[in-house]
Amino acid sequence: MKKKITQIFSNIGTIPGIRIHTANIGIKSKTKEDVALVSFDELANVATVLTKSTTYAANIKWLKKIKNNGKAKILFVNSGNANAYTGKKGYNNVLKIVNKLAEIFKCSKENILISSTGVIGEHLPIKKIIDALPAISSKNNSKTQNWEAFAKAITTTDTFPKASYKQTTIGKKKYSIIGICKGSGMIAPNMATMLAFLFTDASFTPSQLRKMLKSSLEKSFNNITVDGDTSTNDMVSFFSLLKKDSNKTKRFSSNEIQKFQKDLDLVCIELAKKIVLDGEGAKKLIDIQVKGAKSNKQAKNVALSIANSLLVKTAIAGEDANWGRIIMAIGKSSSTVNQNRISIKIGKNHVIKNGEIFKNYDEKIVTKHLKKNEVHIGIDLQLGNGVSKVWTCDLTKKYIEINADYRS
Amino acid sequence: MKKKITQIFSNIGTIPGIRIHTANIGIKSKTKEDVALVSFDELANVATVLTKSTTYAANIKWLKKIKNNGKAKILFVNSGNANAYTGKKGYNNVLKIVNKLAEIFKCSKENILISSTGVIGEHLPIKKIIDALPAISSKNNSKTQNWEAFAKAITTTDTFPKASYKQTTIGKKKYSIIGICKGSGMIAPNMATMLAFLFTDASFTPSQLRKMLKSSLEKSFNNITVDGDTSTNDMVSFFSLLKKDSNKTKRFSSNEIQKFQKDLDLVCIELAKKIVLDGEGAKKLIDIQVKGAKSNKQAKNVALSIANSLLVKTAIAGEDANWGRIIMAIGKSSSTVNQNRISIKIGKNHVIKNGEIFKNYDEKIVTKHLKKNEVHIGIDLQLGNGVSKVWTCDLTKKYIEINADYRS
Repeated sequence: MKKKITQIFSNIGTIPGIRIHTANIGIKSKTKEDVALVSFDELANVATVLTKSTTYAANIKWLKKIKNNGKAKILFVNSGNANAYTGKKGYNNVLKIVNKLAEIFKCSKENILISSTGVIGEHLPIKKIIDALPAISSKNNSKTQNWEAFAKAITTTDTFPKASYKQTTIGKKKYSIIGICKGSGMIAPNMATMLAFLFTDASFTPSQLRKMLKSSLEKSFNNITVDGDTSTNDMVSFFSLLKKDSNKTKRFSSNEIQKFQKDLDLVCIELAKKIVLDGEGAKKLIDIQVKGAKSNKQAKNVALSIANSLLVKTAIAGEDANWGRIIMAIGKSSSTVNQNRISIKIGKNHVIKNGEIFKNYDEKIVTKHLKKNEVHIGIDLQLGNGVSKVWTCDLTKKYIEINADYRS
Repeated sequence: MKKKITQIFSNIGTIPGIRIHTANIGIKSKTKEDVALVSFDELANVATVLTKSTTYAANIKWLKKIKNNGKAKILFVNSGNANAYTGKKGYNNVLKIVNKLAEIFKCSKENILISSTGVIGEHLPIKKIIDALPAISSKNNSKTQNWEAFAKAITTTDTFPKASYKQTTIGKKKYSIIGICKGSGMIAPNMATMLAFLFTDASFTPSQLRKMLKSSLEKSFNNITVDGDTSTNDMVSFFSLLKKDSNKTKRFSSNEIQKFQKDLDLVCIELAKKIVLDGEGAKKLIDIQVKGAKSNKQAKNVALSIANSLLVKTAIAGEDANWGRIIMAIGKSSSTVNQNRISIKIGKNHVIKNGEIFKNYDEKIVTKHLKKNEVHIGIDLQLGNGVSKVWTCDLTKKYIEINADYRS
């Protein structure tokens, strides 16, 4: 399955005006690329959403300072070191990178975005990075738009690089949406929950980008959970470039924006699901759909309570139709439900209907569904019209191995 | 360590007027006792705190109906079947047990407490239970106060029976506090988080019992977490019996009550820690103390965020001094902290001081501490005077094995 996932890179189109530069400078390992630099020939419009963590990393501090700027010349990403909890020195290292890039690209510092992912509490090898920046930044180092190299350079414990691509048509014109992300642990919904970068050649203002990004996040990255943990470095940026054949930002109608939004949602959902699929040690994608809640908020609350339950996640790892744990997880959510109205489906099969075990419940059929790579859990609370979709993965011994035995 | 824990039973004193009856009727297995009945010669005063789950079990529905009664003649507990999510039939089965016991003991139905633990969604073997009740209830079946038999009969996946005993002196008189509990999974702080039963021969009114019980819960059972999951059947009851040599309820002074409260706290904390120690697959007890918070509530919020983090729990299972994950867990809690003020100790050793890595930080010493059975994490937020203590256990492959491979 994972092989198929990486085939996507050969389909990704090119967005003129973007250059991708990647390099190995020995942060992550001696051989893997660990620095990626995206430069824009002209300033791109951008919106960024940051982690809600209060122990955010040094680069996040920088982004908080400049985030309302809305214009980007450079996106710099390093993997292998989060530059989190590194105090004043860590923040000074961010400023050093910003200063050097501003000098190389002759741009304003406020137009430089910095992103980091990796181990917390260690200092960046700043001299190595600064010394390497001129060569990394050279045009010779960016002949083609190599999205796969970019996606690989930003990975840490990921087992495959992650991308999503969609062509969308507005009027008679075609536009591209390219999404790249990384993440496989410390994934929980609290705003952005990993690194994700979205690019389009449809021209939007920064405030349009922000509005669309926030809307897509609520249907994708904020609806996934691997282990309930949230990183100090999470961020999602959405860049919009001026299409070459138009001289100024095109004004789209609200209908056109709605159409674009739907395709952006699909790109974000595909990326989010890939992160869950790559959840540390995961063997199964679990798709949880709650309907009939009093509100969308309640639906999400119940869905996440199920998605974050270790007992549910281990039962599914064990392919055990232990629906009692789903009931337990619904009951422990902070939502008030009426247990006599709940209906539960696993796959297409009713397990509970109107608060009672379904009269034709057949554990064998449900167990068969649980043996699949994708498990569907459907809940109907029968209280109202609120709905939510959430994705998670099963919890296996491999997760413990990855996280107990290796420093990450 | 676990052997030592069970030695406690030989030290537990007797409280006159309590009879303990236990039996095997084949709910849990063919050989292990799975029904326990505590009968009081005279009505005992009682206070009960119930699970906050909204998908609570049939017996909880009964207790919700009678809980303000404050008088108990019988406590009936069965293990192996939670009688949860069993609909009308499940509740009718509770009423059948209540009716039969009321007939046998010639008492009011409102004075009968029913407690269940085990698999969710299966019906009790009600005929077997009803048929067995007369023999179980007979005085011949309760010659001695066998607390160990009681503690064993109420266990499910527990690997050892759990008790705590304390003698307390008020004035010149000695009183006993006996605590029995069970629990090793689905443990998270949401009111009562397991089955626990407390008995004393000091005479308190039901409202005094309730007040003391709630106060102790906030320092003990509500401060432990194994997997963040909450059961449909959790309950804690606190029974007070009239001491034989006093004819009416003694009125204790507020100082005397305070003294008693402290000892009750100790009993509850000991029980709570035993549950964590018996956490499914756990090898280590993790003791988390947060101080310097804006309020006790914030301190508890931060402590629980660390205690519930899979990444922290797996790092400790792997004896890895990965303090970055503690920082992450503090940051993801819903509390606003100032990361430049945080200090972290692991064991007696500073790791972080005032937001920076401690200048004499020595990972080897910290790793040595992590090899112990009991791991201490101390956080100082330096924002105020709020404090909290929370206990959890490490997360091991064994937890996954227990919960993925067996139905529980």
